[in-house]
Amino acid sequence: MTTQIETGVSLAVSTVIFALRPDPDTGLMTLWLPLVRRIREPYEGQWALPGGPLIAGEDLAASANHTLERTTGLTPKYLEQLYAFGAVDRSPDRVVSIVYWALVQSDEASRAIDGENIQWFPADQLPTLAFDHNTIVEYALWRLRNKMEYSRIAHAFLGETFTLAELREVHEAVLRKPIDPANFRRQILASRAVEPTGHCVTGTSHRPPRLYRYNTAVQFADQGPLTRSTGQDQSQELR
Amino acid sequence: MTTQIETGVSLAVSTVIFALRPDPDTGLMTLWLPLVRRIREPYEGQWALPGGPLIAGEDLAASANHTLERTTGLTPKYLEQLYAFGAVDRSPDRVVSIVYWALVQSDEASRAIDGENIQWFPADQLPTLAFDHNTIVEYALWRLRNKMEYSRIAHAFLGETFTLAELREVHEAVLRKPIDPANFRRQILASRAVEPTGHCVTGTSHRPPRLYRYNTAVQFADQGPLTRSTGQDQSQELR
Repeated sequence: MTTQIETGVSLAVSTVIFALRPDPDTGLMTLWLPLVRRIREPYEGQWALPGGPLIAGEDLAASANHTLERTTGLTPKYLEQLYAFGAVDRSPDRVVSIVYWALVQSDEASRAIDGENIQWFPADQLPTLAFDHNTIVEYALWRLRNKMEYSRIAHAFLGETFTLAELREVHEAVLRKPIDPANFRRQILASRAVEPTGHCVTGTSHRPPRLYRYNTAVQFADQGPLTRSTGQDQSQELR
Repeated sequence: MTTQIETGVSLAVSTVIFALRPDPDTGLMTLWLPLVRRIREPYEGQWALPGGPLIAGEDLAASANHTLERTTGLTPKYLEQLYAFGAVDRSPDRVVSIVYWALVQSDEASRAIDGENIQWFPADQLPTLAFDHNTIVEYALWRLRNKMEYSRIAHAFLGETFTLAELREVHEAVLRKPIDPANFRRQILASRAVEPTGHCVTGTSHRPPRLYRYNTAVQFADQGPLTRSTGQDQSQELR
């Protein structure tokens, strides 16, 4: 078999960003993501994931972060590599896209750039997107829903402290199903994933709900040896 | 901030291939991987993961498969994308490597190309490799060990049918710890991951061990929507 090196390949970095917002019909929290309208060919006028070419002198995650900030104004704390998409026919020219995925809290999502060429869509009701971006979102949704089961990824949608009801609402929104409060409480406490802060929500009722935080002493299946610290750095590869 | 597109980037596809072989000191089964000696700069003379540039007209996984076959003679049934490594300083020129990982059965591993420029090494006792390949192997080991806990990946090291002792030996080899046979038996049967074939190992003792196969009716966290079929095709991206 003779093989020929692909010489004309270019590299893009795109990001799927999820946030929780109420569904306009049901009022229930659901997953949304921002899309950017393409202003040039190919796929001019169609919606696409925010992204752009790899930036010179920057690692992949840094390039994803900067492109994301430029196109959407968002700087998510949780950013993780999703997959490299490189099918031959995904673009007229040969483009391999390294795709990241990010989770942002609702208040952060509300600070995104507002304009006619950027818009939030419910993640499960997307129009036909440019390139293979529908496939990419489908895969990102699968990864998110799967990862909810065995890691503390729900944390990225919440603040430092949260009530068990808030945590359950995140699980319900992502998994798109109601979860029994008592079962959820029992399971999450048995897993030792969260611990009480000793404080309660203030200024609410006569029986204010307790506040919890994630228990960082418990090891979960997160990013393994590619994670060396928390916060923004968790998106960086090892040098 | 001004940003500049990375124009000189090239794309490589490499693969970490694991097989189980006896440790020469202890005799216990352990993880090994084949490495290829580099015959040109950079890192000439050092060991590296089998790989090469992206092949024209081929998807990423197909390119990984062909490069692997050319350099090692191996055509693994299980091939999955691991991660894209793109740190700025990982190579003198800007090279982004899309890395796959593969598992092969021992009999398949013994059919690998034999020569002075290809050699098998115990995965936990590697020399200093070219580029960032030590980091890549470390990450692949973490992913494999992690995935053993929640998917049927051990299957890739075994034939269609196997005894529970053989399955336990795979878990022990990958996780590098002895596992209590009775506990393992109870847990694996409770998970419904395997089912009895109704047959036993023939021609051995007066109490021949039962043969099991993986229960394909149970959904596990495998590759999700990017997996559409079994065998070689499981390594292909959706078109």
